[in-house]
Amino acid sequence: MSIKSAMSDFKRLKLNLVKPVPSDYEISRNQTPKHITEVAQESGILSNELEQYGSHKAKVKLDVLDRLHNVKNGKYILVTGITPTPLGEGKSTTTVGLAQAIGAQLGRKCFANVRQPSMGPTFGVKGGAAGGGFSQVIPMDEFNMHITGDIHAVGMANNLLAAALDTRIFHESTQSDKGLWKRLCPENKDGSRNIPIGLLPRMKKLGLDSKDPKEWTEEEIGKFVRLDVDPKTITWKRVLDLNDRSLRGVTINQAKTEKGLIRETGFDITVASEVMAILALSSSLKDMRERLGKMVVASSKAGEPITCEDLGCAGALTAIMKDAIKPNLMQTLEGTPVFVHAGPFANISIGASSVLADRIALKLAGTPAGLTPEQAKEQEGYVITEAGFDFTMGGERFLNIKCRSSGLAPDVIIIVATVRALKVHGGGADVKAGLPLPLEYTTENLEMLEKGCANLQKHIENARQYGVDVIVAINKMSNDTANEHAIIKKAALEAGAIDAIVSNHWEEGGQGALDLAHGVIKCANNEYPAQKTNPPQKFHYLYETEGLTIESKIEALASKMYGAGSVEFLPEAQAKIKEYTAQGFDNLPICIAKTQYSLSHDAKLKGVPKGFVFPIRDIKASIGAGYLYALAAEIQTIPGLATKCGFMNVEVNDDGEIEGLF
Amino acid sequence: MSIKSAMSDFKRLKLNLVKPVPSDYEISRNQTPKHITEVAQESGILSNELEQYGSHKAKVKLDVLDRLHNVKNGKYILVTGITPTPLGEGKSTTTVGLAQAIGAQLGRKCFANVRQPSMGPTFGVKGGAAGGGFSQVIPMDEFNMHITGDIHAVGMANNLLAAALDTRIFHESTQSDKGLWKRLCPENKDGSRNIPIGLLPRMKKLGLDSKDPKEWTEEEIGKFVRLDVDPKTITWKRVLDLNDRSLRGVTINQAKTEKGLIRETGFDITVASEVMAILALSSSLKDMRERLGKMVVASSKAGEPITCEDLGCAGALTAIMKDAIKPNLMQTLEGTPVFVHAGPFANISIGASSVLADRIALKLAGTPAGLTPEQAKEQEGYVITEAGFDFTMGGERFLNIKCRSSGLAPDVIIIVATVRALKVHGGGADVKAGLPLPLEYTTENLEMLEKGCANLQKHIENARQYGVDVIVAINKMSNDTANEHAIIKKAALEAGAIDAIVSNHWEEGGQGALDLAHGVIKCANNEYPAQKTNPPQKFHYLYETEGLTIESKIEALASKMYGAGSVEFLPEAQAKIKEYTAQGFDNLPICIAKTQYSLSHDAKLKGVPKGFVFPIRDIKASIGAGYLYALAAEIQTIPGLATKCGFMNVEVNDDGEIEGLF
Repeated sequence: MSIKSAMSDFKRLKLNLVKPVPSDYEISRNQTPKHITEVAQESGILSNELEQYGSHKAKVKLDVLDRLHNVKNGKYILVTGITPTPLGEGKSTTTVGLAQAIGAQLGRKCFANVRQPSMGPTFGVKGGAAGGGFSQVIPMDEFNMHITGDIHAVGMANNLLAAALDTRIFHESTQSDKGLWKRLCPENKDGSRNIPIGLLPRMKKLGLDSKDPKEWTEEEIGKFVRLDVDPKTITWKRVLDLNDRSLRGVTINQAKTEKGLIRETGFDITVASEVMAILALSSSLKDMRERLGKMVVASSKAGEPITCEDLGCAGALTAIMKDAIKPNLMQTLEGTPVFVHAGPFANISIGASSVLADRIALKLAGTPAGLTPEQAKEQEGYVITEAGFDFTMGGERFLNIKCRSSGLAPDVIIIVATVRALKVHGGGADVKAGLPLPLEYTTENLEMLEKGCANLQKHIENARQYGVDVIVAINKMSNDTANEHAIIKKAALEAGAIDAIVSNHWEEGGQGALDLAHGVIKCANNEYPAQKTNPPQKFHYLYETEGLTIESKIEALASKMYGAGSVEFLPEAQAKIKEYTAQGFDNLPICIAKTQYSLSHDAKLKGVPKGFVFPIRDIKASIGAGYLYALAAEIQTIPGLATKCGFMNVEVNDDGEIEGLF
Repeated sequence: MSIKSAMSDFKRLKLNLVKPVPSDYEISRNQTPKHITEVAQESGILSNELEQYGSHKAKVKLDVLDRLHNVKNGKYILVTGITPTPLGEGKSTTTVGLAQAIGAQLGRKCFANVRQPSMGPTFGVKGGAAGGGFSQVIPMDEFNMHITGDIHAVGMANNLLAAALDTRIFHESTQSDKGLWKRLCPENKDGSRNIPIGLLPRMKKLGLDSKDPKEWTEEEIGKFVRLDVDPKTITWKRVLDLNDRSLRGVTINQAKTEKGLIRETGFDITVASEVMAILALSSSLKDMRERLGKMVVASSKAGEPITCEDLGCAGALTAIMKDAIKPNLMQTLEGTPVFVHAGPFANISIGASSVLADRIALKLAGTPAGLTPEQAKEQEGYVITEAGFDFTMGGERFLNIKCRSSGLAPDVIIIVATVRALKVHGGGADVKAGLPLPLEYTTENLEMLEKGCANLQKHIENARQYGVDVIVAINKMSNDTANEHAIIKKAALEAGAIDAIVSNHWEEGGQGALDLAHGVIKCANNEYPAQKTNPPQKFHYLYETEGLTIESKIEALASKMYGAGSVEFLPEAQAKIKEYTAQGFDNLPICIAKTQYSLSHDAKLKGVPKGFVFPIRDIKASIGAGYLYALAAEIQTIPGLATKCGFMNVEVNDDGEIEGLF
């Protein structure tokens, strides 16, 4: 296959490959990044579409989408993985390494689209999330810190809504309807009322917009000014972008000034906020505005959902988020463009980067109208986008929630596998961060690996249910043997993968991912013989959102994806299903929050568990983001810090550089 | 006086003056700002010293100070005010208007240095803080929102320290010394210990750095790994940049995972964090690193102060703050440069912008070595910097704390006065935001005004105690009469002001402040006859920090500045004085937290109260920032939202512009 450069003016940053591979931070610091304006220019972004944030980061305006409206999208490649170990199997590294291979080594337009990491884990045990080794987003310290402040904006928006809600309850508790009316909508000299712009949507929702406020009855005024929130139903929590376990459970309103309105609540980590999910799923500023307004924070005492719009907050939240909606541009270690945008929690949310970053990248990687198929193929670029956790969590949500929201569909699904994790699924001992690996992981063990490959096969079969072709990327590690790689490849092809390709990008950067790059390009163009004899189905979702009950959607996911025999809905979940169905929220897709360490709900069940009873404890709603989430486990939505934590290794040296991030 | 342009390449943005004056937001939006690179270039900032954040904001690297090391500083003008009303008397507006006059109208190098506003009040009752009318920082929506994220960085740093503290208490409660030692400093294969870089300062503090950890006794290990925090002594609170009254008092650690270690605490607004005060007072990255390490968060059970450094956090906090330390460049409505940097709470902290912004601006406004005095005078520029509240709060701290930290001293002190506020001090009825003004404020009332001028005179006399010349700026309002202005001028001159000048910048921008500009330049160059006959003393502080007790410093402030007859130290304050003296913190300057609506501690005492007993309820320590603060009142450190609040007026329009900020 001949590949012509579609980026003749692209300047590759050369790697200085060293073995053993130095620390991520050393590698990042030893590379000199291009100025971000250069990256932008090479990517086809016009200077008036770029907002620089320092020399190595920029925001890209959504105007690009208008300008490139008629461009045919580039190829859309989803990177997911098998059921991982706590060490991670290298999805981010593969995403970045593959982008370096296609972009810097093969000279094609290629974007890596990744999530913005939370600073909680960065200073906690997990460390940063810029990829690793010679496949990284740089500068890795800037990537792992504030970037352009989007997570901070999400936190502000989330917390303004929380403050507005609690303050409203406070003021309603001390004021009559008349008092509220007088203050919320003060009377003008001519007797008319000055209704704040933020309260107009509630006026409309109550059908009061057609009537002069002077004519409103006392009952109508009461309905308008009194939200009558039932404090027991509040689902909205405050957030911080930190691992602060002390805030998991808190009692608020304990100052004397708050007149005894104490209540129990808790904080989440910012990336678990619904506002973050909205940032990831919005298709425009206007769409974001609408979604923010729809967020449900509680119910009234009469059982009606209380929204952000009811509190008059949606405009202000949009103002806080108006820059955050623009995707951030950075670069890989080899100088190819990276979009870093949004980072919703992979458990209670979709764990993928933003729809807008993907759409912009697909246009920038796309081809103008009027080309011959041959020309188009030669000029076409690639967008490598990542979904959190394994295929059956992140990949499933990417397809059923994110793609449903964006209208896009991937051309290829990559499932990243490691010998190490497959051995865990074949009965190997547990592996833990910071502890030495047991013997089975440092020596060849074909039997254990062969057994464990069932896990990979299940993910491949799951992915194929959506009608998309699968390539397995075997993320090479130092103890792997050729025999082991051959076993994985055989199992992958048996399960219907188009190919299984070893990739050594961590050690060698883009060069190490060249085979994978060629395979992905071939697959995206339907050039594998297997694709010709057995052409793929058309992409489709696993379930329809309309016309199905909440239960049946959950059952479809549990049986077709996880391998459950049945689903048990616990009483709390049953009550919520009833409530959300009554409120008209039963036509939404479902995000299932469960452990990422098993295909089932039980982290101990490795390999491919079957026939188990899948428990749904509770169901919650992210109406603005546009999904319900069902809890199959108690999910910790704010992590803690360990005795020894990442922050203890961090220092700023005399040159003002950050040391010790990892 | 002839003034030659020192900024021949400066491009003035013309004002389209309209009466009545439109809303701040309309004025801001109707002006097209210059690109920030243009503002930087005109200001003498090199392109490699600039980090753009979008088109209208940039960070300026501290390298400027090295490059301009030999430059003689420009003139340093401090803007303060009389005891204000809740409506504010226009210090920010005067700061910006004067900078527009000197910079854009007279064509001299001139910087306005202001604080970054908190988003709490922006969405609360007070609104934004960009100045007002035709004297504003633009774009005012960007000014009032995130700017470059410094406040978010302050919040992150503050809250990481809080999480580290509570988590450490948790882990110490469940682990033996041996267990802590094993985890904090894991053993290497050769038996040596891997001590995290963040814990090295504690090792040194305990004198353990000279001894191989293998040789440490059990007692030494225990001392090193166990901070033994007394939870009752914790002074460190979490912060949010919001008006969230529900968080004033909270109980944390209530989740089951926290094993019953519940404790009561509260949140402050981010700008009240000691980290923000440190940002304002630091002279370099290294100085900031040291100050962050010195912050005291609690005492051990043995009564020793526990610092950020003891928790191993100071490096990580510095990493979080490493970009925040660079001052932000924006522009006025007439295109002159503005530094917006830091915004410490004006009550429990200094309420002034940063030392670094002032130092950089003074160099950029300065003159090269080797000029004749005549040449220097012609080329010399001006830095107009503002201090919060009245002279006797913000001005006093500016001189005794900020100047002591920076080594700088102002050339002129401007005291902003309004007819309205002076009438309040002369016995006029209370004025309140949102309510119509009583009759005495809309008609001439010379008697009331004359009586009220005593307040202005006291501030002038207070300012003159520091050996700096005072100019009174009479901030003109529409109901003022020429007779009223004449009375203020007479009173000001009597009290020792060099001049009192009417300024109409709100309505007319820089043009309206031209008289004030000429007066300030004349005063800064000692050209007033009064300055020649009676040359000013040399600048000096009100009190020495060393060799005086905490009590005597507070007594000096209360008697010489506020007019108190005596000071009463309540028991809590007495206990703290004893504690801080024992801990060696008695050699610090003092910041007194009291109402801004009276020279005394009692907001109801207008004019010039005398002989009252000034109560000190409690004393707290900001060791990293470098001062103690004494509470003469219960200070609310996180505001609340009103029934109708700023956020209800905010919307983002179809062009993506924010509407409704004020």
